[in-house]
Amino acid sequence: MQSILSYATVGENASPEHAEVVPITIFVAVLCLCLVIGHLLEENRWVNESITAIFIGGVTGILILVLRKGKSSHLLRFSEELFFIYLLPPIIFNAGFQVKKKQFFQNFITIMLFGVVGVFISTVIISLGSWWLFPKLGFVGLTPREYLAVGTIFSATDSVCTLQVLQQDETPLLYSIVFGEGVVNDATSVVLFNAIQKMDVSKIDSQTILSVIRSFLYLFSTSTALGIGVGLLTSLVLKTLYFGKHSSIRELAMMVLMAYLSYMLSELLKLSGILTVFFCGIVMSHYSWHNVTESSRITARHVFAMLSFVAETFIFLYVGMDTFDMEKWRMTKLSFGTSLGIYSTIVFLILVGRAVFVFPLSTFSNFMNRNKTSPLTFKQQTVIWWAGLMRGAVSIALAFKQFTYSGVTLNPINATMITNTIIVVLFTTLTKPLVNYLITHGMRNQNNHGAGEGGEQPRSPKDDVVLPLLSFDESASANMQIARDNFSMLMDRPVYTIHHYWRRFDNAYMRPIFGGPRHNPSEC
Amino acid sequence: MQSILSYATVGENASPEHAEVVPITIFVAVLCLCLVIGHLLEENRWVNESITAIFIGGVTGILILVLRKGKSSHLLRFSEELFFIYLLPPIIFNAGFQVKKKQFFQNFITIMLFGVVGVFISTVIISLGSWWLFPKLGFVGLTPREYLAVGTIFSATDSVCTLQVLQQDETPLLYSIVFGEGVVNDATSVVLFNAIQKMDVSKIDSQTILSVIRSFLYLFSTSTALGIGVGLLTSLVLKTLYFGKHSSIRELAMMVLMAYLSYMLSELLKLSGILTVFFCGIVMSHYSWHNVTESSRITARHVFAMLSFVAETFIFLYVGMDTFDMEKWRMTKLSFGTSLGIYSTIVFLILVGRAVFVFPLSTFSNFMNRNKTSPLTFKQQTVIWWAGLMRGAVSIALAFKQFTYSGVTLNPINATMITNTIIVVLFTTLTKPLVNYLITHGMRNQNNHGAGEGGEQPRSPKDDVVLPLLSFDESASANMQIARDNFSMLMDRPVYTIHHYWRRFDNAYMRPIFGGPRHNPSEC
Repeated sequence: MQSILSYATVGENASPEHAEVVPITIFVAVLCLCLVIGHLLEENRWVNESITAIFIGGVTGILILVLRKGKSSHLLRFSEELFFIYLLPPIIFNAGFQVKKKQFFQNFITIMLFGVVGVFISTVIISLGSWWLFPKLGFVGLTPREYLAVGTIFSATDSVCTLQVLQQDETPLLYSIVFGEGVVNDATSVVLFNAIQKMDVSKIDSQTILSVIRSFLYLFSTSTALGIGVGLLTSLVLKTLYFGKHSSIRELAMMVLMAYLSYMLSELLKLSGILTVFFCGIVMSHYSWHNVTESSRITARHVFAMLSFVAETFIFLYVGMDTFDMEKWRMTKLSFGTSLGIYSTIVFLILVGRAVFVFPLSTFSNFMNRNKTSPLTFKQQTVIWWAGLMRGAVSIALAFKQFTYSGVTLNPINATMITNTIIVVLFTTLTKPLVNYLITHGMRNQNNHGAGEGGEQPRSPKDDVVLPLLSFDESASANMQIARDNFSMLMDRPVYTIHHYWRRFDNAYMRPIFGGPRHNPSEC
Repeated sequence: MQSILSYATVGENASPEHAEVVPITIFVAVLCLCLVIGHLLEENRWVNESITAIFIGGVTGILILVLRKGKSSHLLRFSEELFFIYLLPPIIFNAGFQVKKKQFFQNFITIMLFGVVGVFISTVIISLGSWWLFPKLGFVGLTPREYLAVGTIFSATDSVCTLQVLQQDETPLLYSIVFGEGVVNDATSVVLFNAIQKMDVSKIDSQTILSVIRSFLYLFSTSTALGIGVGLLTSLVLKTLYFGKHSSIRELAMMVLMAYLSYMLSELLKLSGILTVFFCGIVMSHYSWHNVTESSRITARHVFAMLSFVAETFIFLYVGMDTFDMEKWRMTKLSFGTSLGIYSTIVFLILVGRAVFVFPLSTFSNFMNRNKTSPLTFKQQTVIWWAGLMRGAVSIALAFKQFTYSGVTLNPINATMITNTIIVVLFTTLTKPLVNYLITHGMRNQNNHGAGEGGEQPRSPKDDVVLPLLSFDESASANMQIARDNFSMLMDRPVYTIHHYWRRFDNAYMRPIFGGPRHNPSEC
């Protein structure tokens, strides 16, 4: 446990076997406190769970700092292992499991443009921008590889926060695009970050760029295939063996373990675990979920949501606690002005990097879907631009991976980059309610427009007992309806056509094998 | 993570960041395999989940051994931290959460006699026996403290296995006694083991024994109070704030985190986490569970059962894998005959140690409950004796704690004690189906007798969606009925009297504050 939960004991006389108990106890207690305060502030528009967690983390950090007489504020050293092996998989799996598949696949092209091409563009802008501007501010010493890493670190949006900014029932189209982008973006950033670690930065020519793109495409397709494969295997096992006959506990354990296995297998094969577990989540909610007993369905939904929720809260708590990590602050030898200059530069580059791809790609996406009833308006594009500005856990994890060794660094430049990342994440997260307000304000006129597009009556993702049992069929039949009614338009609307044929294929071959309710053939 | 999941990398060229991924992936994959095979063998009387897990663990161990050309069979080094901080809490909490409170408290005196006094007697017998017999077999070198540790190690019964041996619907009385004893026994063994670590073994007089008993009583009462306190606090928070209003996810997270917090807090205060979390489970199922939304109730039951199930399977898998740990086998320098002699001696001592307390204490318990309709017959006493012979995870964990340093030992005597423990656990677990058969055979005539005592219609602990929602009231009202009908007998039956007044107090004061359904006052 030393390396994932490395700790600095609070008391001097703590016995070695109890050394680990102290940080875990404090973390669990503070998590409980976050839950209670988050609940009490639920109706407050300006505060949310992540801000609460950051704030409580900060207060805890200060308390520990005072107790230790200014030595250090963190109980646990950050480790990418803790993050990438334990905290990230449940968050991403839950995203896949709860995503509205219909809308996700209808906007698939747009999502991919933003999530994949967007990250490439944003990385280039931020890398070049920081390479050009950092030395002007008096901050030198980063290698070319590090500039590229900075580009990917600050291109990873926070898909978790996005869920809290946009309301699924107010703006279903934007919600699905921004959320879908967030998930694909997480995966792309991590894959790109790893590609940059391996690439030869001494000579960057078209050959190198082509090889990065090629290795990216390979990773993307194999990771997706693995996730779908594991998901289908789980569905098949659950359907064939019908665990529920003897025990619903086994079904649940099977789903949880197989989901985790998909992630670990993907990491083992050096693929993108995020993408794998995301698609595994989609397949499991589409097939496996229908093969289990009703109690397991309810439990599965809630367990995945709970694990994801706790993991997120934990991450924000950690970020808050790490803000007052005095060791790193003392190590950065820059003046307050220079530091402020660097933060502003990064935020500015994030703004520009995102603008540069959102508006052109939206136009391109509108051109591709030119027969769609409603293209993305300029106002909607602006919202997409704004909503994706938050930086979160993935940025922090990548920054720690790049600039520290198991959460520790003795290099002033590296320490500066860590504090920079934390400040940017804090700043973007804390301004979120403002973004939220602007979006809600800006979108009020668009409401009917957006809702008309989404079609389906939306629900809160939390707290639904009976509704999840319907959500899959409802989208299928609604879609079928659209496909049939607009048969004349099918040729002009490739996405709908693909979706229509997929539905037929799904009903005729996939569902009978892997599970899920079948529709009346007359409907097709 | 190094110390909980210390691993030996399979390939030589595994990168450091991937080193941890390999053992986790293999463990998760093998766990999935156990689930599938366990399901397929469900109807087989002679094989069960734990035997399957041990067997698969063994096969995996051999495979790894072959792949590594005989170097070592384990992927993970055993660590008491992994066991005591992560695996044990969910198992014990689930035991408390799912226990039939009515029967547990009705047989409270008997359970305490077996679980507390029994462990003391058994420890003395096994310690003295091994101190007398081991040197005769040519096995010398253990210190007095180690002999005492051996006594507690082999006095810890396997409460997990017990659940699989006795059928709650066939023998409710025996089930509740043996299961209740198992939980109290786990706690007593651990507390006693820790007391022995601290005690001065150089002069064992009545003073020392008295101080052990005093410290035991202190630990027992404070641990129980802490568990009840945390459970009540959780109930109060859930009832007052009504989390379900906004999100059922928070309720669930709150229950899981508070349960875990009770365990960690208890460990932090150097109390018995097992006892604390067990009573926390009882209080939570009695009050907290009634304060959450229906979906959270279903989810809570299944999540706790699933976590406990996975943790158990993991432990047995580990035991199987460790059986072929060649390093330890090579280190024990004893001949096959001597080793066999030691195993037989330990099994013999376990048999004697258990007989010495079960029969006298049963007689004493019958005397205490002399007005009870049915005392424990000799046949039932024999079943209790047999059923508690299995040794399991707690024994292994204590043995590793006593005889290794983070799972590693270089001392031949210590290595021998580890292999002894594993062999005894394997032997007692593998003969379980036989015990099972004998009990079922022996008890067939006692069925009606036993069921008549239990009163309430029992259910399978697994797979119940709607039933858990009833279980608490049903026992309450059934009990009320008994209490009212037998008012004339109340003075003769102290346990019933206590139970009756407790119910009145519970209905009048506790439930209105902490939650749970209230009964019609006219019934009292």
